[in-house]
Amino acid sequence: MRKCYFDHVATNPLHPQVLDAMLPYLREEFGNPLSLYELGMNAREAIENARAQTSSLINSKPSELIFTSSGAEANNFALRGIALARQNEGKHVIVSRMEHHSILNAARFLEKSGFTVTYLPADKHGMVEPDAVKKAIIKETVLLSVVHASSEVGTIEPIREIAKIAREHGVIFHTDAVASTGNIPVDVKELGVDLLSMAAHQFYGPKGAGALYVREGLRIVPLIYGGIQEGGRRAGTENVPAIVGMGKAAELAKAEMKGRMEHVKRLRDRLISGVLGVENVYLTGHPADRLPGHASFAVEYIEGESMLLLLASKGMYVASGSACSSKALKASPVLLSMGIPSSLAQGSIVFTLGKENTDEDIEYLLTEFPPIIKRLREISPFAKGWEEDAQGSKCYTTFPESQKNGKD
Amino acid sequence: MRKCYFDHVATNPLHPQVLDAMLPYLREEFGNPLSLYELGMNAREAIENARAQTSSLINSKPSELIFTSSGAEANNFALRGIALARQNEGKHVIVSRMEHHSILNAARFLEKSGFTVTYLPADKHGMVEPDAVKKAIIKETVLLSVVHASSEVGTIEPIREIAKIAREHGVIFHTDAVASTGNIPVDVKELGVDLLSMAAHQFYGPKGAGALYVREGLRIVPLIYGGIQEGGRRAGTENVPAIVGMGKAAELAKAEMKGRMEHVKRLRDRLISGVLGVENVYLTGHPADRLPGHASFAVEYIEGESMLLLLASKGMYVASGSACSSKALKASPVLLSMGIPSSLAQGSIVFTLGKENTDEDIEYLLTEFPPIIKRLREISPFAKGWEEDAQGSKCYTTFPESQKNGKD
Repeated sequence: MRKCYFDHVATNPLHPQVLDAMLPYLREEFGNPLSLYELGMNAREAIENARAQTSSLINSKPSELIFTSSGAEANNFALRGIALARQNEGKHVIVSRMEHHSILNAARFLEKSGFTVTYLPADKHGMVEPDAVKKAIIKETVLLSVVHASSEVGTIEPIREIAKIAREHGVIFHTDAVASTGNIPVDVKELGVDLLSMAAHQFYGPKGAGALYVREGLRIVPLIYGGIQEGGRRAGTENVPAIVGMGKAAELAKAEMKGRMEHVKRLRDRLISGVLGVENVYLTGHPADRLPGHASFAVEYIEGESMLLLLASKGMYVASGSACSSKALKASPVLLSMGIPSSLAQGSIVFTLGKENTDEDIEYLLTEFPPIIKRLREISPFAKGWEEDAQGSKCYTTFPESQKNGKD
Repeated sequence: MRKCYFDHVATNPLHPQVLDAMLPYLREEFGNPLSLYELGMNAREAIENARAQTSSLINSKPSELIFTSSGAEANNFALRGIALARQNEGKHVIVSRMEHHSILNAARFLEKSGFTVTYLPADKHGMVEPDAVKKAIIKETVLLSVVHASSEVGTIEPIREIAKIAREHGVIFHTDAVASTGNIPVDVKELGVDLLSMAAHQFYGPKGAGALYVREGLRIVPLIYGGIQEGGRRAGTENVPAIVGMGKAAELAKAEMKGRMEHVKRLRDRLISGVLGVENVYLTGHPADRLPGHASFAVEYIEGESMLLLLASKGMYVASGSACSSKALKASPVLLSMGIPSSLAQGSIVFTLGKENTDEDIEYLLTEFPPIIKRLREISPFAKGWEEDAQGSKCYTTFPESQKNGKD
């Protein structure tokens, strides 16, 4: 059976060149980067080389990059570290409703710690409006965090405009660029952000490696205290092989970005136009301002998980909403915040394409997807009602007969 | 030139079988453990298998183990997570002066957050006295943390007795077992601890993998918020290859522990008796209750770094104090707290042996070490003074002539 991996937003395979770069550090070059002898110095050089490669991807100085173990750690570090560092200036934080759980739940932690948090709404395309940001800022606001690109609906937020507003009001601005970095151009200077989170496994680097960009001169309170690693800002023996892999993946992403973007965008556009040919399927997120490999839909009258499982049985791997909540089968808060009704939000399905996907993958998907939808609608009580309704004969409630309004 | 790695407390090479276990997860098995399809389920199973292997090493239930990215993260998580969870019951925390920086600096963070911290003294062997623990506990004490074995001086603390005292007083007890787990038997039930930190790279597992044991039923506030990974207690896409490696390393450590311990202990005893043959060299830490592969010394009139660099030039890799502060060339607070004078503490040197060390390694060291000490003492102004003093002719101050007391 054909295997098609359409879930690059959940995680990516390692680029073979990335693994090759990591292997020496999983074998003979095992030193602790803090050790003063050769083995340690080699590890330290490898980390600084990776720092240069990674910072080059986002146009920061190497010294502005702090390696972490994941995007989630970077997000927690940013929110909690800046809120604590600036709490004497005010205890108000703003985040958008489009954020990943690692931002939303870190914000809830800040609420429990005495901060007030404003949650910014998004429009029907998942776009956070700069005007809403302006209105939300008060004298006590010390930190604002808006995601660069939503992993769930692909929408790319107007970070440049929002950063300008933050700057004008003296508010520190963080963006969660985990889903975007390595996949589209991300330039911290051009975006004008103060902090930015990223994760290597989102661009064919290893799991276990992330980074937080912290603009030069900005004070941040550590999340993990201990030794003098990362300039005393993030302790713990460095995961040298993963950091080396992140650097190599960043270098490759920068060199190959244009080609990768064109490739996935072309396939994605085919995928979107094909899938939208199925009745009662809607594109979620912004139709134009979205990640090039990202195609997300809401399919009426069907649960996302059913589609996901039937597609998996045909060798196609997709997501239904955010990977981090995939086991909690509830309608996504992000979709609900965009005004998508709960019944429709439950039919969420997300295809994210990568450099190894082919035209044949898309053809296979477009052949197999419509019959899967048809089959699921045949067995769904909701869809049953809908089908009959579509024929003009029945309403699609599941109310007991006695409660119906006599339409039939 | 012969190469001898005598710095296993800084980090360890990967066991070849550990790397073999990791490789499939660095290649084809790259799924996100939260994904609902096969690739995700394989990753999830791999993690749960590693959790069973790792928990078996410390005799806990698999569900009592939370994977982290390092021992430092586990230590921060334990201290901050328990202090926050219990702050309504009291805001007093006790840690010992023998702790690693990740405990001491997390404790200082708690002090800044409104907690009071008591720092327990240690005796001249680096042993924390259970009686001192008893005296330090007050009504407001919610948490106590004492290291299982010191990475700097090797002393194994009386954890069982201290845990008993904590239990009798209703105080939650954490032990940092990063240097001990996988190297000596560590049984959470027998020790009677509530929380325990460990790190895979201390027992031939990968960097980037640690764990915190949290006794069943104990509430802990997360350090990294986000998705539902690790039962909602530690977010971030799991570092599957590293976790798999940790599991395999734990399995091997358990199976081979007796042999490994006997091997390093025999070599260490030869090393200690040989090194103590050099004039004015003292063993630091406990003479008997110490990690089997751990030999630490204070060498009078010489700086640790000089010894380290000359040994490195002969292919022997050793540490001078804690790896996490190796670039901050100050006398170790741990040694000072044991009553070792600053001038002597600066001559700290630590040899930590591993399963691949041989009798030939020890012979090589014992041949090369005495001439290195001799050479360094010849060029050291302090040693110069001491040599002359030893001849009864000169005091070894570096005071200007005018301030001398006319002894010469």
